[in-house]
Amino acid sequence: MATAGNTTRTGRTGRRPGHSGTRDAILDVATRLFAELGYDRASIRTIAAAADVDPALIRHFFSDKETLFATVVADRTIIFEQLAASLPGDRANVGQRVADIYLRLWEQPETRPILLAIARSATTSDKAATMLRDALAHRIRSRAGEPDNDQARRLALVGSHLFGLAVARHIIKVPAIVELSHEDLVAQVAPTIHRYLTATHL
Amino acid sequence: MATAGNTTRTGRTGRRPGHSGTRDAILDVATRLFAELGYDRASIRTIAAAADVDPALIRHFFSDKETLFATVVADRTIIFEQLAASLPGDRANVGQRVADIYLRLWEQPETRPILLAIARSATTSDKAATMLRDALAHRIRSRAGEPDNDQARRLALVGSHLFGLAVARHIIKVPAIVELSHEDLVAQVAPTIHRYLTATHL
Repeated sequence: MATAGNTTRTGRTGRRPGHSGTRDAILDVATRLFAELGYDRASIRTIAAAADVDPALIRHFFSDKETLFATVVADRTIIFEQLAASLPGDRANVGQRVADIYLRLWEQPETRPILLAIARSATTSDKAATMLRDALAHRIRSRAGEPDNDQARRLALVGSHLFGLAVARHIIKVPAIVELSHEDLVAQVAPTIHRYLTATHL
Repeated sequence: MATAGNTTRTGRTGRRPGHSGTRDAILDVATRLFAELGYDRASIRTIAAAADVDPALIRHFFSDKETLFATVVADRTIIFEQLAASLPGDRANVGQRVADIYLRLWEQPETRPILLAIARSATTSDKAATMLRDALAHRIRSRAGEPDNDQARRLALVGSHLFGLAVARHIIKVPAIVELSHEDLVAQVAPTIHRYLTATHL
């Protein structure tokens, strides 16, 4: 996450690093600020100031804030890739596997700020919510083809439950959820996730 | 909800209605604006303008925005009362009952804006999240005494799941969740809620 601050610069007014370096640095800063401030309060101006670039450069790369956020969500794809990768495999412990990987992503410093940004943005901005829905649907389709209604419903129930748990643990900080170890929390919800994914009749 | 706009006034500059009428009208407007704008963007100034009162009058009644929001959450107690009332009774269908009542509150025009305000505020403001936690804990204690760790954990798991579902259905608008009827959604999650509340070992 903090790679933007670690890039070696010859000086604040010197030549910018190459195209992709600057673009990456902007994405790093944008990811952090979306997480810290939420979608609505993280403005292009704020992000530009924190990244030490001109706001026009951000618009040059990303057009507008909506596209910048969509790029943050789409380019930091380890989250979606890891989640998608947790679905195939032994059906007997798929609930445990999915719950473990999703909730672990929230504990890790590399992925936690992005998940915070998605959660805060999607609950406060209709535009961000729409982009999140589209990005999720695109990932699922590109990986597993068009899900049928039954699969889509199962995944949505799983996602809703895990999202609610992550919000309770990491944003609202409900004591009874915060006090649980990662392993205990996974153990308690795994049977639910298992049922949503595998029960013949739901 | 919309009663603030429906109160008969003799004129915008005429005498204010009595103390409790004005206070109630401010609470109505505050509830609506917290729901529409979220906790952070609903300022005392905005609420005062929409309620057609001086900001100083809001501070006179409620001191600051934190207290105003806490009062909105606490005074619109039908939500907590209905939830608390859904817990006692026949254990055989407690999961169905709790899921039905919570998700129904989100469908009703009287309670939906308050739940939206709580959800949006709690995910974007640490202060609001803290107040929400305290209000919930207070309600549970005043109704059922101090919950032991096991009870608190069960209620937190139930609350997290139902909150996640409500966000998916009413804020992020995940198609597979939106398309379900209220009854079907309740039927699909009731076994989960039942397990969290009643399973001997969790």
